[in-house]
Amino acid sequence: MLPFKTLVSIDKKAAMPVYQQIANGLIAIIRKGMIKPGAAIPSSRVMAGVLQVHRKTIIAAYEELSAQDWIAAMPRKGITVSKHLPELKPVSFRRTADTSAYNSNPPNFFMKFCEAATVTAKKQTFRLVINDGFPDARIAPVDNLLRHYRLFFRKTYHEGLIMHGDAEGSVNLRSAIASFLSDTRAIHGGSSNILIARGAQMAIFIAARMLIKPGSTVIAGEPSYNVANMIFEHFGAKLIRVPVDENGIDVDAIEKICKNRKPALLYVIPHHHHPTTVTLSADRRMKLLDIIRNYKLPVIEDDYDYDFHYNRTPILPLASADHNGYVLYIGSITKSFASSVRIGYLVAGAEFIWQAARLREMIDIRGDVLMEEAMAVLFKNGDMQKHLKKAVKIYQERRDDFCSMLEAELGGITRFTRPAGGMSVWVQFDKKYAVSAVAKKVAAKGLFMADGGFYNSGKTNYNAVRMGFASLNKKELEDVGSILGSIK
Amino acid sequence: MLPFKTLVSIDKKAAMPVYQQIANGLIAIIRKGMIKPGAAIPSSRVMAGVLQVHRKTIIAAYEELSAQDWIAAMPRKGITVSKHLPELKPVSFRRTADTSAYNSNPPNFFMKFCEAATVTAKKQTFRLVINDGFPDARIAPVDNLLRHYRLFFRKTYHEGLIMHGDAEGSVNLRSAIASFLSDTRAIHGGSSNILIARGAQMAIFIAARMLIKPGSTVIAGEPSYNVANMIFEHFGAKLIRVPVDENGIDVDAIEKICKNRKPALLYVIPHHHHPTTVTLSADRRMKLLDIIRNYKLPVIEDDYDYDFHYNRTPILPLASADHNGYVLYIGSITKSFASSVRIGYLVAGAEFIWQAARLREMIDIRGDVLMEEAMAVLFKNGDMQKHLKKAVKIYQERRDDFCSMLEAELGGITRFTRPAGGMSVWVQFDKKYAVSAVAKKVAAKGLFMADGGFYNSGKTNYNAVRMGFASLNKKELEDVGSILGSIK
Repeated sequence: MLPFKTLVSIDKKAAMPVYQQIANGLIAIIRKGMIKPGAAIPSSRVMAGVLQVHRKTIIAAYEELSAQDWIAAMPRKGITVSKHLPELKPVSFRRTADTSAYNSNPPNFFMKFCEAATVTAKKQTFRLVINDGFPDARIAPVDNLLRHYRLFFRKTYHEGLIMHGDAEGSVNLRSAIASFLSDTRAIHGGSSNILIARGAQMAIFIAARMLIKPGSTVIAGEPSYNVANMIFEHFGAKLIRVPVDENGIDVDAIEKICKNRKPALLYVIPHHHHPTTVTLSADRRMKLLDIIRNYKLPVIEDDYDYDFHYNRTPILPLASADHNGYVLYIGSITKSFASSVRIGYLVAGAEFIWQAARLREMIDIRGDVLMEEAMAVLFKNGDMQKHLKKAVKIYQERRDDFCSMLEAELGGITRFTRPAGGMSVWVQFDKKYAVSAVAKKVAAKGLFMADGGFYNSGKTNYNAVRMGFASLNKKELEDVGSILGSIK
Repeated sequence: MLPFKTLVSIDKKAAMPVYQQIANGLIAIIRKGMIKPGAAIPSSRVMAGVLQVHRKTIIAAYEELSAQDWIAAMPRKGITVSKHLPELKPVSFRRTADTSAYNSNPPNFFMKFCEAATVTAKKQTFRLVINDGFPDARIAPVDNLLRHYRLFFRKTYHEGLIMHGDAEGSVNLRSAIASFLSDTRAIHGGSSNILIARGAQMAIFIAARMLIKPGSTVIAGEPSYNVANMIFEHFGAKLIRVPVDENGIDVDAIEKICKNRKPALLYVIPHHHHPTTVTLSADRRMKLLDIIRNYKLPVIEDDYDYDFHYNRTPILPLASADHNGYVLYIGSITKSFASSVRIGYLVAGAEFIWQAARLREMIDIRGDVLMEEAMAVLFKNGDMQKHLKKAVKIYQERRDDFCSMLEAELGGITRFTRPAGGMSVWVQFDKKYAVSAVAKKVAAKGLFMADGGFYNSGKTNYNAVRMGFASLNKKELEDVGSILGSIK
């Protein structure tokens, strides 16, 4: 008889019932070929003695095995391993039942995106965080949103919200966004022009996938939002980088490229360019619109920060002018509300949106339907607009306070321009102060700050970091300031 | 002077302030080249008279335009259009300012996934729904989940949950799922073996993208989950279909394919195959494991319904046996909880997961961090396990009641097998009753039922529909029954 006591491990404290643990243990033994099809296995009485459990437990385990077709009760022969199982060579008795097949290094059959990282389990937790430019969830009407969310949850079934949820997203939210865009930035469209996505990120991914073929030319700024660049290259695009100066992306350089080849896509961030926060000037916008029309240049206009422009109202998006449908407009509700509520949108012609929704279905059948409905309520009853008004006021103050703090604490060793909008300042450090070293120093004092690596492109080390100010209240800003001041 | 009154439309009831409407109107005029760079525009007094608004409103509009660099106040010349704007040819006076660039048919520059649909705005709403097999959110501990969600929202900032959220998903949820998988299905791994995704759908998309190159061979059942097939073909795979009978997918046919070529992927749904609900038998699982090991065959094991098996416990997944990391295991929390809470997971080797997380970042920076944390609490305090126990009991009853109803109401004209698990019954109609016609008939009585088209593959019309029973309570089942009974 096999050493069942050794082979079948039983843990009476485990959540899994003992009979099932025994059944699973026996299945592992059969799977390994230690008992061949047709061979007898001990009676329940014998097995109960061997494993030191109640006989009823063994009977339950055997019933389970029989129901699953692993064993059969044969007349006169007692219980045997099912005959129709494929014959297996017996393997050694080395116990591997508890060893995960995932413990070994996985085979090399998959796509790699970058060098494998050492997967580190523990991370430092920080008392304070300078993020990339996130909103402050504490000032958002979160309770309001969650109240509506909860209500929709209750009537889920009857409303049929989920069953009739389109891949395009909640039609109520789409129409609310359509009016919002028309009111705030003169983009006129209906709900059929809008696809809801999980944040602006998914909208970029989808739009890029619709436009890029392997070998396509894509134009992006230098520097630019690197995760977007990763997407373009992931789909096989050849990236051409165009300088970004204090007035935004160099449109003459874009035209020069268009004269020589037919780019599949221009990626542009007109307000508060990522990472440098500059705004594309009005005259360049006009010129760019001419280029778009003349060369039929498809554009992703990533306008994630439009609603946060201080001192003056923002410049109208490219998408608000005549562009014959070539400008795909992307916006973010995440940035207007709270980082954890990931909702963004893509604006395009109705057929583009319809096809994009088919792609979205493959990626992610639908969004959080109830959250989308709840968010639609906030837009429709004006709570969102009220919130934005309040947030712009608060963030403008925080921007000014943050810039004063930077001046005071890091004045001699950094350069920055007070941004006209957005939620972060682009801070370039003197060569003597490597951003990565600064990040390490402040981390030791409980302050998280990015090490700057994310903003660099292949060629250039900007030795700079985006410092998000919007989520820091006065007390936190003070603490951040005193830690930053200590690095000199 | 230009007919400003005609060209600039003002709506005093609109959300956008009047001064801004005027500014936008003038920008449109400048953009169209109706006023050239350097040309004078009327003084605020004159413009106020023309547009019949207060002079202060015009001054505000001009300040806006000046801040945006569209106009400049020139000494002695008054206000002029900025000189450095590119010279534009004037266009006709036809008003196009309010016309969306998205109204015209979009240019044909994008990828098409299928024939364009006529985008229909209005949809019927239904009193009753037979879905594809969704859980009943009404029996899930929704309040419990939302209470935790709300709590995490409140302490968002200080916990730094978002800032430190990995693309892999909440580490608390990942470790909770790891224990859950170990307890319930003998898949032993740690949090580094788990990627959280937006539902099983995104997990399939990511896994497929990691494995498939254009021209790759992918094996899938006939019939199978069609959205997965769409993904495989989207990435350029050549699909080979293998029959699925009452014991699941034909593993001998799989081996035959492996002898002749090296498939990049096998997609298999071992429990409650979609759409036919059959379970892959124990002996075929063993044989399939041999094939996986012998041919180093990468597998996506889509086990979305594992937790819902009735009468007996489910058969252990392929992923629980020795497979050297070739089996990528996918599960769904959405199916265990509520359709609107879209969380699924992918289990694989740590490096595969790490690379997959880089892809996930491009698609969707992170999930709903707070919801993931809240869900982790439900797993860790045992609420989820309690809920599953209760749900299995309720759904088993509903399955039996649903099958009795089918027998009684559609007995003569349909064939179906009572499924061993899952949330739906695969119902094949007699040829005389086209599913699409039945769906239309019942729709007229307020009952939604799929028209069956989704389940067909290119060649085969199964004239069948998956009928979800799990979300129908006794009263709803009765109503559904009386409507279905009326079609004969």
